[in-house]
Amino acid sequence: MSDIDMIRAARARIGTHLRRTPILSSPALDAVAGRRVLVKAECLQVTGSFKARGGWSAISAIPEERRARGVIAFSSGNHAQGVAHAAREHGIPAVILMPKDAPRAKVDGTRALGAEIVHFDRETDDRDAMGAALAEKRGLTLVKPFDAPLVIAGQGTAGLEIAEQAADLGVAEADVLVCCGGGGLTAGIALALEAEAPGLRVRPCEPDGFDDTARSLAAGEIRRNDRLNGSICDAIITPQPGDITFPILKRLCGPGLVVTEDEVLRAMALAFRHLKIVIEPGGAVALAAALFRPEAAQGDTVIAVATGGNVDAPIFARALERAT
Amino acid sequence: MSDIDMIRAARARIGTHLRRTPILSSPALDAVAGRRVLVKAECLQVTGSFKARGGWSAISAIPEERRARGVIAFSSGNHAQGVAHAAREHGIPAVILMPKDAPRAKVDGTRALGAEIVHFDRETDDRDAMGAALAEKRGLTLVKPFDAPLVIAGQGTAGLEIAEQAADLGVAEADVLVCCGGGGLTAGIALALEAEAPGLRVRPCEPDGFDDTARSLAAGEIRRNDRLNGSICDAIITPQPGDITFPILKRLCGPGLVVTEDEVLRAMALAFRHLKIVIEPGGAVALAAALFRPEAAQGDTVIAVATGGNVDAPIFARALERAT
Repeated sequence: MSDIDMIRAARARIGTHLRRTPILSSPALDAVAGRRVLVKAECLQVTGSFKARGGWSAISAIPEERRARGVIAFSSGNHAQGVAHAAREHGIPAVILMPKDAPRAKVDGTRALGAEIVHFDRETDDRDAMGAALAEKRGLTLVKPFDAPLVIAGQGTAGLEIAEQAADLGVAEADVLVCCGGGGLTAGIALALEAEAPGLRVRPCEPDGFDDTARSLAAGEIRRNDRLNGSICDAIITPQPGDITFPILKRLCGPGLVVTEDEVLRAMALAFRHLKIVIEPGGAVALAAALFRPEAAQGDTVIAVATGGNVDAPIFARALERAT
Repeated sequence: MSDIDMIRAARARIGTHLRRTPILSSPALDAVAGRRVLVKAECLQVTGSFKARGGWSAISAIPEERRARGVIAFSSGNHAQGVAHAAREHGIPAVILMPKDAPRAKVDGTRALGAEIVHFDRETDDRDAMGAALAEKRGLTLVKPFDAPLVIAGQGTAGLEIAEQAADLGVAEADVLVCCGGGGLTAGIALALEAEAPGLRVRPCEPDGFDDTARSLAAGEIRRNDRLNGSICDAIITPQPGDITFPILKRLCGPGLVVTEDEVLRAMALAFRHLKIVIEPGGAVALAAALFRPEAAQGDTVIAVATGGNVDAPIFARALERAT
């Protein structure tokens, strides 16, 4: 099956179980950016992030007998909730390995969705060995967070929606800015747009100091982040682009954009004030790039994907201090 | 023209200029309420509240020659922005009389939409005389905030959407909780549902101490609020139900619901955490009633209209303190 056929098949499996998230905009944001800014509000997706798409796509495609034994995933939060939601809706158990320092909203959200949470210590535990042992013992199927074709296809359903919504708004050419961790969403959207809206070009966005994808694209080969802690953008901090996602990004995406943590918080504040949506730091990176790095994008319109909204209140309060 | 025909005509005039706002939900909110809670997110409407509907409906229906001279409105904020937006899109001037103590987000939002703002003092100025003089001098058409058939028809377009969205979700019977000030939205939705979804019953919701509509419905005749200041729910504090809206409410609505300010702030916090939307205090009253007064509603499902999201950061920070 071709990439776009896999994305269309994922959309068919998702059906009406998930939301077609809206595109939002505000003249005030347009004024900041100096061009029209369209925000794909994936924070309004079921579970508060686009990860519900990939989780559903992967779990719904597991053969039924095997699926019944359950699934396992590693995640600090959004992928955890996406997998937990899809597992619950399919009536199967989900085990999620989460780092002990995962944001509380994400731990609580995952538990509320009925998943069994196993905590590990990022420094001292061998996460992969713990997961492999559990999977082996219980016959659980691993659902990877990004580097898997079915997951990429699920995230790509957001790209199908963007293509349709942009067409409805008369937008045929634009940069599409996507918050980028391992690259599953970025690759999925890029594949969908390649087929459905070739005038829309994906640009991965990352926080300053954690710009493995931007540097990898510039180098033409995979580069790693020097460190993995110390960012408020927890949702999109990964060691490096995926082995499956990176070749897709390299073939289809424009150069990466990088923003500061302060710009991320200001973008969250502007989304609060003008769009009335809650975006988490890792989900606000693309909007921050649209607003504060206008010279890096091209065209009259820019589309920014607000990838998630699972933020703890104290961090959101920090963003509110920048709402003037 | 019948009421429902007026609402359908308003929808035709609005076309794609405004948003069809989504219905959001979360298992966590269902658990709090003890039943399914569907939230009609009018905070995601253009200008951050449902008022854009009534403003567009009224302004688009003014004969063109007269409309070109401009419009005038009195408002502490949401109606102001709705009128300013519709005026700007129609290419005509808008003058808004705002109290000097209107929330900053609303004043700034109105100004950003290109309206001319004239401030008045609630205590010392004769607002009506000021407005009449301005309207006379410049030939401006007054757009009332709620007690006008075209405005009620515009707000009723939200009711058409609720009827369709409830049907899509298989909900044929439910209480529809609506934050109620002068009753324009409440009456409009009630008229729309009477025609399109007679199993859905509207219930007006108000903050404790400002429950003129609930008391009026209980008495069968119009009752006034004792005071108009001292509430965080500025968007829905009016002296009394309207002369046009009240008979509609009396004929079609169930008893009113009343919630405390603390419940309003807790509802805002739960919407932040589980729906990823920003609701202002006056727009969270219905959700608060759905969540914290479950005994007052009937059925397996309750629909709550989150009417607006134009809240200043310090008030939202107070709500965040309740996000546990």
